[in-house]
Amino acid sequence: MADIADLSFDRPALALQAEILSRPMTTARRMADALRALAIDATEQARSGHPGLPMGMADVATALWTRFHKFDAADPRWPDRDRFVLSAGHGSMLLYALIYLTGHDGMAIDDIRSFRQLHAPAAGHPEYGEHPAIETTTGPLGQGLATAVGMAIAERNMAARFGKSLVDHRTWVIASDGDLMEGISHEAAALAGHLGLSKLTVLYDDNHVSIDGDTALASSEDTLKRFSAYGWATKRVDGHDPAQINAALSFAVRSKKPTLIACRTVIGLGAPTKAGTNAVHGAPLGPAEAAGARQLLGWHEPPFSTPPDLKERWHAVGARGAVSRRSWLKRLARHNQRAEFERVTAGRLPDNWHEAMAALKQAVADERPRIATRAASQRALEALAPATPELVGGSADLTGSNLTLVKGMSAIANGNYGGRYIHYGIREHGMAAAANGMALHGGIIPYVGTFFVFTDYLRPALRLAAIMRQRVIYVLTHDSIGLGEDGPTHQPIEHLASLRAMPNLHVLRPADALETAECWELAMRRSDGPSLLVLSRQALPAVRIDAAENRSARGGYVLAEADGPRQATLIATGSEVPIGMAAREKLAGEGIAVAVVSLPCWELFAQQDATYRAQVLGGAPRIGIEAAGSFGWEQWLGPDGIFIGMTGFGASAAYQDLYAHFGITPDAVVAAVMRRIG
Amino acid sequence: MADIADLSFDRPALALQAEILSRPMTTARRMADALRALAIDATEQARSGHPGLPMGMADVATALWTRFHKFDAADPRWPDRDRFVLSAGHGSMLLYALIYLTGHDGMAIDDIRSFRQLHAPAAGHPEYGEHPAIETTTGPLGQGLATAVGMAIAERNMAARFGKSLVDHRTWVIASDGDLMEGISHEAAALAGHLGLSKLTVLYDDNHVSIDGDTALASSEDTLKRFSAYGWATKRVDGHDPAQINAALSFAVRSKKPTLIACRTVIGLGAPTKAGTNAVHGAPLGPAEAAGARQLLGWHEPPFSTPPDLKERWHAVGARGAVSRRSWLKRLARHNQRAEFERVTAGRLPDNWHEAMAALKQAVADERPRIATRAASQRALEALAPATPELVGGSADLTGSNLTLVKGMSAIANGNYGGRYIHYGIREHGMAAAANGMALHGGIIPYVGTFFVFTDYLRPALRLAAIMRQRVIYVLTHDSIGLGEDGPTHQPIEHLASLRAMPNLHVLRPADALETAECWELAMRRSDGPSLLVLSRQALPAVRIDAAENRSARGGYVLAEADGPRQATLIATGSEVPIGMAAREKLAGEGIAVAVVSLPCWELFAQQDATYRAQVLGGAPRIGIEAAGSFGWEQWLGPDGIFIGMTGFGASAAYQDLYAHFGITPDAVVAAVMRRIG
Repeated sequence: MADIADLSFDRPALALQAEILSRPMTTARRMADALRALAIDATEQARSGHPGLPMGMADVATALWTRFHKFDAADPRWPDRDRFVLSAGHGSMLLYALIYLTGHDGMAIDDIRSFRQLHAPAAGHPEYGEHPAIETTTGPLGQGLATAVGMAIAERNMAARFGKSLVDHRTWVIASDGDLMEGISHEAAALAGHLGLSKLTVLYDDNHVSIDGDTALASSEDTLKRFSAYGWATKRVDGHDPAQINAALSFAVRSKKPTLIACRTVIGLGAPTKAGTNAVHGAPLGPAEAAGARQLLGWHEPPFSTPPDLKERWHAVGARGAVSRRSWLKRLARHNQRAEFERVTAGRLPDNWHEAMAALKQAVADERPRIATRAASQRALEALAPATPELVGGSADLTGSNLTLVKGMSAIANGNYGGRYIHYGIREHGMAAAANGMALHGGIIPYVGTFFVFTDYLRPALRLAAIMRQRVIYVLTHDSIGLGEDGPTHQPIEHLASLRAMPNLHVLRPADALETAECWELAMRRSDGPSLLVLSRQALPAVRIDAAENRSARGGYVLAEADGPRQATLIATGSEVPIGMAAREKLAGEGIAVAVVSLPCWELFAQQDATYRAQVLGGAPRIGIEAAGSFGWEQWLGPDGIFIGMTGFGASAAYQDLYAHFGITPDAVVAAVMRRIG
Repeated sequence: MADIADLSFDRPALALQAEILSRPMTTARRMADALRALAIDATEQARSGHPGLPMGMADVATALWTRFHKFDAADPRWPDRDRFVLSAGHGSMLLYALIYLTGHDGMAIDDIRSFRQLHAPAAGHPEYGEHPAIETTTGPLGQGLATAVGMAIAERNMAARFGKSLVDHRTWVIASDGDLMEGISHEAAALAGHLGLSKLTVLYDDNHVSIDGDTALASSEDTLKRFSAYGWATKRVDGHDPAQINAALSFAVRSKKPTLIACRTVIGLGAPTKAGTNAVHGAPLGPAEAAGARQLLGWHEPPFSTPPDLKERWHAVGARGAVSRRSWLKRLARHNQRAEFERVTAGRLPDNWHEAMAALKQAVADERPRIATRAASQRALEALAPATPELVGGSADLTGSNLTLVKGMSAIANGNYGGRYIHYGIREHGMAAAANGMALHGGIIPYVGTFFVFTDYLRPALRLAAIMRQRVIYVLTHDSIGLGEDGPTHQPIEHLASLRAMPNLHVLRPADALETAECWELAMRRSDGPSLLVLSRQALPAVRIDAAENRSARGGYVLAEADGPRQATLIATGSEVPIGMAAREKLAGEGIAVAVVSLPCWELFAQQDATYRAQVLGGAPRIGIEAAGSFGWEQWLGPDGIFIGMTGFGASAAYQDLYAHFGITPDAVVAAVMRRIG
């Protein structure tokens, strides 16, 4: 394979472009130009968008899709398809043009015409759910790459479980310099290298241009060397030379390591004056430049039109995988694990998944253990894991603290992918994105663990789980000042509020072992979004004895009614529920009757009807108790409520001292009630 | 220098330990053992903490502090001291022991005894402000390293400004494998390599142990090769051999690049059975193991006691920099920029800083420009930058979108550090941490730009700015669905709430050019915490004409009183204030008198007295308007308020279409008022 050094890319972009475009016209070039033309037309029409990447990477995408990428446009959800992830999601028109030209239903030329308009499947960035061939939502840089690592893990894990005859596909990523500058790329690439995910290939659009200008403004790294340090195979190619691209892709297919192919390209190839500059990155070419590009490319079709011969060729690409898919369907039909495969890929829980969980709930209701909710979570996992083989867990190097590893789960490691536990390393962000990838891949319900405060490190990936409605379960321990001596950097204050504010999350903060089991049950059942289990480090007394009904399912409920007409309602979550219960008892001693409401999931409680909510919260004065900031509590407490909690950051001390220091105690609650009811 | 390969570190840890401890006893070893003993004693006493790192890195720290680290215990805030950052903050006892033994005021043996107890300066993790020799708060992994990059940038920038006679110091970091696995380490190290920060040295505690066990469980990367790819010099040493450590430190001092020294160590060196394992990472040794360690180390002092000769030697280390500091003070005394140097290092704004700003405010009040608040921010910067040379800006590759670069600011680049603008690359997290480092270093007021939604990528560093009360200014543009076609991944929904929930932030969302100038003014004046300017992409009409008073300073105010007794109060922020104004006009046409309240900063408004707040918010029904989620709005709207905003994620379309689609329009406000007042 010719080395890039032969190619003299170190010349002005327009000179390079002239050389590239002077090469003999080929079918591959024309097929790529069909992509370029659609990207030009759609961004012109929308008067916004990013033509640069589609025009620059059209040759690479053409090589990949015409010869390597395994898919069948007739069924974009075929489980054994290759996954294609456009991590550089701003170049979305490249993906839409590929989906359209390969003949997928649901992406017609009119959809391309309405690029970036309301309700168009061709949204500004690729949005999961807008078209079945969009494997994941991308746009926030680095996420696609890191999500693809999860997809590649899922493939290996599913292959180990169901065999190569059902699961044998690759994961392809197109990434930009932005993807690779983001910190998450480090976490994801290091993990992929560690696990030896040889079926993962990243095509890096090495165009030397970022939004601010030449990448040299901000970057001097030797990216190939860096990836090689992670244990990746690397290649560098002329991204406009199909022979080189094909050779590198063949190399990647043979490689025993994940592969990074740096594709040296001219961003916006074809744009007569703007090619090779940041002017073509994030704005349409403009009419004159667009016309000039057509001229330069030798493209003389009307806008949004593709010559029939090219259309036919691209349609043939879309049908290329049909034979593979039909053989696969036959293999599936006679596979002895067919039902199980279909069950897990459909995301259905096994029939018996709930039996051990029901037994656990009864056991903890009887036993009333005084344990941390993180330990209760471990017990829930012990009940769930044997019955639900699709549960694949992990932690960002806090296994013994998060208590996420249970008996019978072995580690997933390089060459040994049949395990069910991933040591993610100190890589919260990469972990969360990988979990998204596993969930999107299908067949796996991922759960991941870290300290609650470190959700800050993984928020962008969590947000994507929420946007894409993926079943990813978070085990978030050490959930307040209750963690004690590690101090303010490790003590969540604003995290409950900041996550309750995010659409489509369920933030579950159980109060004892029984509620923890209930919350795990809810997280398992929830198939349309992520659930966060927010768990204590410190031991907590049991507050519930009735296991018959999953009371957490309504988000909030009266845990202990007042003995007599309510004079106040104490509303608490998690480790502060016992404080409420203790205050209730003290107040009862004073002849004051108060109820205690447990509110483990605000989102579910908000979904209950107003009557139920009013009945739970009651008309008496309300006191909220939570070892966190008050932000958002007004919605439950009303204007006259009192909040007992944190007003600033925490401190380093034994947790009992901290609760006393910050005044989150039964006595403080009693005093507040006294004050409030006069 | 001997190569690590000679050292046969590939043996069981206890065999290694035996060899290391059998080396001839030296003064350096004894000085290091004094650190080890204090770490053992303090964690035993606290019954919690992390002895492993202090014991493993004691030899490295001793070499560094006794021979290289420039400081004077008599004045830990001496501006030209070297900065020492313990990025692996869990090993805090190493730092406290160093501070104590070198004779600093404010860290007595009783402080060491009360390690991790309430009010102790020796907190669980190093907390900025607890002792003047603690340069930054560390604990969340990766932050210290990335903060140190900012300190090293600040040093180069200040040296360019004031000359080597006043500014000539180094930045030393001790980092763990966790620091280097975190994504932020990639961003920070790539930036440091790009800028050629040769006075930055990272001592990597390469102990092969993480919390889950051997680092091989999760990591296979060649860290030296990776850093070399970033443009760093690298060395590998036996971290228990002073000669090797000293040689590597000398190499680092001579290096023209930032330097990574991988120090191969045995974690918990001295612990007879637990050394070299994760058992010694995060828990005290326990009485028996602690006694065994004393035996093995040949340390026969009572707990918390250091032999007088070692105490004397360590005190001498603490005084080693006194001569340098005295010469420096003399140079300062006669320096022609002395007053300016003292001003910027004290964080005082220049006397005239406000003149151009006052003129700008009057100009926009007169002119009433219809511009985006991001453009208004650019105008504010144009007014501020010439008068305040300590302002150093930058953006994570969105300069032209954030509008953060103004005339007269040149870029800071490798070998040319006198500029005032940093092209951070697509590295939000590294940028935010670097800004913390610049602020902590002193002499600089950093501001940084990205899209508002991407605060998710930098939250851990922002939280540290809040905890440490640092003046870091964020320019956060594209602040809502108002950004349009880029769609849900780029449209903040929960971000306002999630940041308003964080203690000690000021979240400022101005409504027009005048409020933007006011908010910039507040951000500049605020010296005890970070300020976030949340700015629109889209143009907004001017809503204010009165520049006399900074009305944003109270956080909220009546922008337009009702014409007649208030029938409702419309409360809005930023781009929704004009929607409130338009609704007010429409309602006036219907004979309904409503007031419009602008609420640019909730935190400042919450600090006003109750009377003022009640007067602003009024007793009439309240309608909140914000193109974001409602979380937290109840505190202003009360139980009967109506919120006009978002209920889920956004969409990709022109922004006008999105406002209509999501019903955030004057008509919707009018309808809500009509509904509410019957």
